[in-house]
Amino acid sequence: MKENTYIYNEPFLLESGAVLPGIRIRYHCSPGSCAGRNVVWICHALTANSNPLEWWPTMVGPEKFLDPGREYIICANVQGSCYGSTQPHATDFPLITIRDMVKAHELLRLHLGIEHIDLLTGGSSGGFQALEWAIGNPGLTGNLCLIACNARISPWATALNESQRMALLADTTFGPREEPLSGRRGLAAARSIAMLSYRSYEGYSKTQSEQEDDVLMALKACSYQQYQGKKLADRFSPYSYYTLTLSLDSHNVGRNRGGTAKALSRIKARTLCIGIDSDILFPISEMEILARHIPGAVLEVISSDFGHDGFLLEHEQITSTLCKFLNSGAAHWPMPLP
Amino acid sequence: MKENTYIYNEPFLLESGAVLPGIRIRYHCSPGSCAGRNVVWICHALTANSNPLEWWPTMVGPEKFLDPGREYIICANVQGSCYGSTQPHATDFPLITIRDMVKAHELLRLHLGIEHIDLLTGGSSGGFQALEWAIGNPGLTGNLCLIACNARISPWATALNESQRMALLADTTFGPREEPLSGRRGLAAARSIAMLSYRSYEGYSKTQSEQEDDVLMALKACSYQQYQGKKLADRFSPYSYYTLTLSLDSHNVGRNRGGTAKALSRIKARTLCIGIDSDILFPISEMEILARHIPGAVLEVISSDFGHDGFLLEHEQITSTLCKFLNSGAAHWPMPLP
Repeated sequence: MKENTYIYNEPFLLESGAVLPGIRIRYHCSPGSCAGRNVVWICHALTANSNPLEWWPTMVGPEKFLDPGREYIICANVQGSCYGSTQPHATDFPLITIRDMVKAHELLRLHLGIEHIDLLTGGSSGGFQALEWAIGNPGLTGNLCLIACNARISPWATALNESQRMALLADTTFGPREEPLSGRRGLAAARSIAMLSYRSYEGYSKTQSEQEDDVLMALKACSYQQYQGKKLADRFSPYSYYTLTLSLDSHNVGRNRGGTAKALSRIKARTLCIGIDSDILFPISEMEILARHIPGAVLEVISSDFGHDGFLLEHEQITSTLCKFLNSGAAHWPMPLP
Repeated sequence: MKENTYIYNEPFLLESGAVLPGIRIRYHCSPGSCAGRNVVWICHALTANSNPLEWWPTMVGPEKFLDPGREYIICANVQGSCYGSTQPHATDFPLITIRDMVKAHELLRLHLGIEHIDLLTGGSSGGFQALEWAIGNPGLTGNLCLIACNARISPWATALNESQRMALLADTTFGPREEPLSGRRGLAAARSIAMLSYRSYEGYSKTQSEQEDDVLMALKACSYQQYQGKKLADRFSPYSYYTLTLSLDSHNVGRNRGGTAKALSRIKARTLCIGIDSDILFPISEMEILARHIPGAVLEVISSDFGHDGFLLEHEQITSTLCKFLNSGAAHWPMPLP
């Protein structure tokens, strides 16, 4: 997929009422024109970039179910992220809501002349964006696939996000203006916290148990948390992270639309909801709410040891479910070779 | 209950091999002698003190099930805590294991001439201590009541503890030597993280949901986390908190005893295990392991909206279960007036 940047040089009005003087949108897309091809718009999650070949390589790539050589695949880096789109370099950055992220996607879509999306999909906060987009522009999308997400951020998830922000702010190097290495420790702590929600209690027991009976202290899980924290701190901006957790807490499809049920009922796309049985961040009950109110929606529950992270890892189940769903509609979606 | 301090002026050898030159033990106990009365030893949890009338007032107090005027009730502040026992004032404090905490309890017991415990009980890490004590000194205790705990710290709980330590260490005011206000922000963040495990997803949905549909951001759960963080930072030492999370991660009854099952099989006390159905920190499966391996143990599962915190809050169910259990044994335990 080719990497591009679209510079939008007009004032960009945010849902909060604040205005960005202009925005930058980094995106990846298939080579060539979208004419005559299925258009697949992928919305990425919290700390990902606009290149799904990097973070979803089992689903997207040559000879995978979503093959950028065959389908026209596009993904845009969200506003507030540090992977090429408009990002914060200090703590005084305006609130970017999920609706603001989708507004930027719409600008890019219009700029590229894409008139119809055959498959709009996202997992986790990528699912938030896909949901908002399918509600805000109901005629745009033919098929909608929502994975491990919900219609409105839950209080427990907000508490998790606030805990992460408290850790970021406890780091006194996370200052009003970005310096090299500023906020790294807070970011590593925040990521460690987030990991607790991405994997289940059982998943941790399976992969992070001590091998020995006689150790004085449990160290294996400690190293794992440190490793995960460092991995993110090495690649991501603490200021983007702070900003994007606030975006998560803005997620509410029912805002100014009369509530969740009314908002979901506007969706016209054929919709597949995929939930993960061990997900503690987006329990199945949340996917059930989506499936109940989105007209004609289908709910599939997949089984995983990985909890919420299953949305990235359970590619065989997701591919199989999605392929079956898409091919029961009008267009043709070739099944990948095993 | 009367507050006392026992100063033990001999070297205190820790499980790690390090030595404290002496230790201080703050404790509360009933007035008068224990002769002719049921002796109840209560082990407190992570951030509690040695006065159960303050943190367990629905279970312990005049006319409550555990009445210090009637039974002889005693509780000792654990080593490493900041409520009167030996505590850290800097980051270079040795590891205190659960077994070390129990060793201090034993010294106090011997000092007070208490030869038998009729009821040994604790919830959460108080349960850790009670378990270790019942294994280490099997003949001492008649009845053992373990609430919302387990035989060995789980990897998910260790990951949670490591996340909290990362937040504490991200706070650059949490320095090598304690100053006023040092480490407060890190401690508030750590408490916020811990709260996520003390209450369930459903519990948060019930109590911290936004009342309005049209808010731009979820704020109610944010204030709750801030409030909980501040409440702890106002009363507790970040250095004690750091130390005590390491103690939690040392919890393993099977260490140098041939494993969990072998260790639990040593217990001679009549044992009641009380688990909470919504507890995500100590799931029922953990209580089942205890009940399976402790000879003759009984498991009761209580129902709560509060998750792990149910061990402090569900006093009616706990009292009823415990009273029935104790009275099916030899001694007489009067039921409290309704």
